[in-house]
Amino acid sequence: MRNLSVSTDLSLHNVTVQDNFWSPYISLVRDVVVPYQWEALNDRIEGTEPSRAIRNFKIAAGLEQGEFYGMVFQDSDVAKWLEAVGYLLELQPDPELEEIADNVIEIIAKAQHADGYLNTYFTLKEPDGRWTNLAECHELYCAGHLIEAAVAYSNATGKNRLLDVAIRLADCIDEAFGPEEGKIKGYDGHQEIELALMKLYHATSNDKYLRLASFFLDQRGQLPHFYDEEYERRKGAIHFPELRMAKDRSYSQAHLPVRMQQTAEGHAVRVVYMLTGMADVAAETGDEGLLQACRTLWNNIVTKRMYITGAIGSMAHGESFTLDYDLPSDTAYAETCASIGLIFFAQRMLGIEPKSEYADVLERALYNTVIGGMSRDGKHFFYVNPLEVWPEANRVNKNFEHVKVERQQWFGCACCPPNIARLLASLGSYIYSVKDNTVYSHLYIGSQIQLELAGQKVHLVQQSELPWEGVVRFKVGLQTAARFKLALRIPDWSGEPEIRINGEGLTISPDQRKDGYVHIDREWSPGDILHLVLPMPVQPMKGNPLIRETIGKIAFQRGPMVYCLEEADNGPNLHQLVVKSDADKQVVFESGLLGGLQSITVPAYRIREDGWADKLYQANIDMELEATTARFIPYFAWANRGSGEMRVWVAETMASNKFI
Amino acid sequence: MRNLSVSTDLSLHNVTVQDNFWSPYISLVRDVVVPYQWEALNDRIEGTEPSRAIRNFKIAAGLEQGEFYGMVFQDSDVAKWLEAVGYLLELQPDPELEEIADNVIEIIAKAQHADGYLNTYFTLKEPDGRWTNLAECHELYCAGHLIEAAVAYSNATGKNRLLDVAIRLADCIDEAFGPEEGKIKGYDGHQEIELALMKLYHATSNDKYLRLASFFLDQRGQLPHFYDEEYERRKGAIHFPELRMAKDRSYSQAHLPVRMQQTAEGHAVRVVYMLTGMADVAAETGDEGLLQACRTLWNNIVTKRMYITGAIGSMAHGESFTLDYDLPSDTAYAETCASIGLIFFAQRMLGIEPKSEYADVLERALYNTVIGGMSRDGKHFFYVNPLEVWPEANRVNKNFEHVKVERQQWFGCACCPPNIARLLASLGSYIYSVKDNTVYSHLYIGSQIQLELAGQKVHLVQQSELPWEGVVRFKVGLQTAARFKLALRIPDWSGEPEIRINGEGLTISPDQRKDGYVHIDREWSPGDILHLVLPMPVQPMKGNPLIRETIGKIAFQRGPMVYCLEEADNGPNLHQLVVKSDADKQVVFESGLLGGLQSITVPAYRIREDGWADKLYQANIDMELEATTARFIPYFAWANRGSGEMRVWVAETMASNKFI
Ligand SMILES: [Zn+2]
Ligand SMILES: [Zn+2]
Repeated sequence: MRNLSVSTDLSLHNVTVQDNFWSPYISLVRDVVVPYQWEALNDRIEGTEPSRAIRNFKIAAGLEQGEFYGMVFQDSDVAKWLEAVGYLLELQPDPELEEIADNVIEIIAKAQHADGYLNTYFTLKEPDGRWTNLAECHELYCAGHLIEAAVAYSNATGKNRLLDVAIRLADCIDEAFGPEEGKIKGYDGHQEIELALMKLYHATSNDKYLRLASFFLDQRGQLPHFYDEEYERRKGAIHFPELRMAKDRSYSQAHLPVRMQQTAEGHAVRVVYMLTGMADVAAETGDEGLLQACRTLWNNIVTKRMYITGAIGSMAHGESFTLDYDLPSDTAYAETCASIGLIFFAQRMLGIEPKSEYADVLERALYNTVIGGMSRDGKHFFYVNPLEVWPEANRVNKNFEHVKVERQQWFGCACCPPNIARLLASLGSYIYSVKDNTVYSHLYIGSQIQLELAGQKVHLVQQSELPWEGVVRFKVGLQTAARFKLALRIPDWSGEPEIRINGEGLTISPDQRKDGYVHIDREWSPGDILHLVLPMPVQPMKGNPLIRETIGKIAFQRGPMVYCLEEADNGPNLHQLVVKSDADKQVVFESGLLGGLQSITVPAYRIREDGWADKLYQANIDMELEATTARFIPYFAWANRGSGEMRVWVAETMASNKFI
Repeated sequence: MRNLSVSTDLSLHNVTVQDNFWSPYISLVRDVVVPYQWEALNDRIEGTEPSRAIRNFKIAAGLEQGEFYGMVFQDSDVAKWLEAVGYLLELQPDPELEEIADNVIEIIAKAQHADGYLNTYFTLKEPDGRWTNLAECHELYCAGHLIEAAVAYSNATGKNRLLDVAIRLADCIDEAFGPEEGKIKGYDGHQEIELALMKLYHATSNDKYLRLASFFLDQRGQLPHFYDEEYERRKGAIHFPELRMAKDRSYSQAHLPVRMQQTAEGHAVRVVYMLTGMADVAAETGDEGLLQACRTLWNNIVTKRMYITGAIGSMAHGESFTLDYDLPSDTAYAETCASIGLIFFAQRMLGIEPKSEYADVLERALYNTVIGGMSRDGKHFFYVNPLEVWPEANRVNKNFEHVKVERQQWFGCACCPPNIARLLASLGSYIYSVKDNTVYSHLYIGSQIQLELAGQKVHLVQQSELPWEGVVRFKVGLQTAARFKLALRIPDWSGEPEIRINGEGLTISPDQRKDGYVHIDREWSPGDILHLVLPMPVQPMKGNPLIRETIGKIAFQRGPMVYCLEEADNGPNLHQLVVKSDADKQVVFESGLLGGLQSITVPAYRIREDGWADKLYQANIDMELEATTARFIPYFAWANRGSGEMRVWVAETMASNKFI
């Protein structure tokens, strides 16, 4: 097998984010989110369900007495927190935080069995149940998160205590699973181990982790079906009775071998974690079949099953994909983690083939669903990210039971908050990649990078006014002149870009544009300045006519930001607001609003209730629409002003009505 | 207490339905539905879950060995069937059917305990559990249906075998429940006993049944809460764990005393059965407070919580009402039984105060949801009656799990099919009522009635071309001239009516119009002919602007019939069809279509998919709409041509689009 020629993400060591919009997020993760989550993991947040995740490790380590508490995958919350800590320490030393982490790592190490096995649920609750319920019980999923944390922590600190734990765990898994006689032919219900083993492979250069990741991927969905076999062996014991995980194979993407899957089915987070692992393996092995399977499912997701906010998963039941073009705004599941997983997958595909469509989706998910999933105080989170809420109905109608209209302190199933933390802490690694002699700028986020190019140390400084203005400036730091390519992504939301180098306009020739990037191949001199202007008009967006939810409606987008109406700005009954797509739009930066953001005000109409009184239906009546204005704010900022209505997709003018 | 001056429904003895539209339904009930349901009750329908309802009675009667099978309210299916049989026998003798019924009645009588108690579930499954779980276990509900059957059967046949069983059962209940010391202060989770006791009171003139009905009604929702008390007594045993019936008090309308309830909450069928009983008691006792409570909840239902098809219940969970103006088309519950209960309630209110709004709703529910609930073959039924279906999504998206896109043979919970049978068999009793010297014609259904008025025998013959044309003819049969009033309802769907008597136009003066009826007070001569023409244009209907679902949409109605689009006529993706409310509409009677019906064809546009290909969202794009026609059929006739899309509420033209 040959490697694909993939681009390399820059390690966090080499990137410093310095950005008006994003730096405060990273500081928030450092100053608030990670400390807050540490309190949560230690059950010190009042008024929320305790996590007991740390306590589970202490009990399993023999340091405390007690019983396992929480979800079968509770361990992963600690691992994801440790992974975020790793990234923070990589960005900047923090001896106090490192000491806390080292102490946790000692506890984790003590909870590991002599043979390398590590999982507090099974250690404490089902000591004889190891590897008996892969379909439901997340053992390999938890192992995967531990491995990811270990790699991050080792990269950051150079300490290998946790990495050694992870290696012993991975070796224990490798002893148990694989194609060889006597090994288990199974795979976890929740993908994660695959991408984690690929990280361990890159960290250790040990082939066996690559082989094991490939085994897990290709074993999935094979017949005779492993989930049936293990179900028989455990005599039909079921962990999550309401979900039929063992029998509903598509829930875990185990309905077909992964290379044969044509559509994204089942639990959305699992799909994108799986695809991330598939892309990782394909990049390493050059396996075209596997890569083609990644492309097929990517296309299905982004052209038929993705919300405009970069969210995925249309249905609460099973936190799942449903079918093409089924994208309800109000009953959406749209889990924060699923958009994070979509970002992982997009990043891997960008590495394999730098096409702007991957970065467009990555950016869409990041600026809308992911940061929408956390409050500005860093202590409240959304699990579910609907595109429309009507709080009164959410309280009463059980179809909305999964939807919260305000961010929550913590969750019994707390997958999302630490996922946001680890993503934001590692944001620097998503901005650029390098391939051959080319630096790709995928995202426009103020930052400094250090890298070796053309045999030289290059120091690239990016200044960006995104997301509010499409104005970006690169300064090239070099010792002496050097020839290399800078590939700048032209986002899907941008008009025709304008590029100036040292003040002089650059005419972009067609052959400089490739897959959505402008490639600038020149001999750069020390101190060169490149200006990039990405026109950022307000864009009236429409949905494909096959989407039932968006017919007759528009959404506004400006730059990467999808906008929404909120009751706080527009009063209740947002469904009565009707806008014209071609109306003049006023864009105003409101520094006092929700930390500063650009609002959009458009002329609109409001359907009047006059003449209806107690009538529910009337014949031969024209609706009366009264001129008004509608004020939109970026979607990510919704639900920061109390409980109220919100909607992304807004009705468009209907000509048959009277306009008064 | 004084009686309200209420109007009297005509007994079925005095009404013969002779109607092109409805007589075939009544024949269908006689020839197919009732025999088919007899087979179902005896577990002889292949491919469906067995009922075992008859077998349960046989086992309880000691005639067979075995165990109870089915829902805790399985007995009621037999009772509702017997009630329908009673109505059929009242319409026309049928010795064979009567013999079958008599045999069943003997079995039921044998299943009755010496003290009058009768319920096969408790007899067979929880012999010590009698009256311990009123909140969940439907004992009084089953008793109520038995009483209704007994009264109907006694009226029809003059045989009192079942009535005696019912009286002994009612007396057993009266021994157990009531305000007196030592009696249980409870009430059934599912209302039904109240209206049934009122029928028994009218049949026997025994006051105690009226008192017991009043007791059950007024006990509901009182504190300390009976459901808490009995829950404690049975140590928290729960029959339906998923519904929390004992704790979710509004599910059973037990959250407040009935007189204090301002909104229709919880299980929709229970609400309307309760209100029927409340109206029955109010009519008898003149209790203004109770009557006012009926009016309050009537208004809440019909002005805020009812579908245009006369369906109620917006949510599958709990088969429940949700909140004002929450009327989703696709996730609707809209149970057939709930519309039948709404008809019962409307009929009682019409008796108390003959206002056309009651009959308007009654007619809306009857012509749309009720007959929509049964296939033209009389052997397939809808439990749930959505206003929009997308079959592909219904198969995949669990939010639609309760929705069937084709009528089913039978149900594990088989409440609806026998409810349709008993309503249609007794349809004659809903057409007229008589108060003082006035005959009210509430519905326009061809029929003959015999009654005593002004000391004379009156024979009134109605001929009606409804629902397809608003043309009605009454012929007055008398021995000699007589003065009495004929009050003709002017339906909410009608234009200004035209009335001719013996060919001569009648000018309707304002004082002849009262509460939606035209009162014609004259000395009628033998053979007088009255012609009534109710203009029946196609009506473009809109929903109150507070209904989110109907904004930007219209529905068509003609006469009592609400119309819908079906995929069979219009192809898939019905959401892409856009109509103009003021377009010319072609109404054509299609004798070959689904037994003959009037279709409506309107010019429309279809949103084109051209230019979208694999794009999910696009900026700055106008939708292209192509001229086409849309063909609507009456809602009741949907889903008779295989599985396909259907929708009642259709998009209206949006002026901002290009029309090509
Ligand atoms: Zn999550
Ligand atoms: Zn029913």
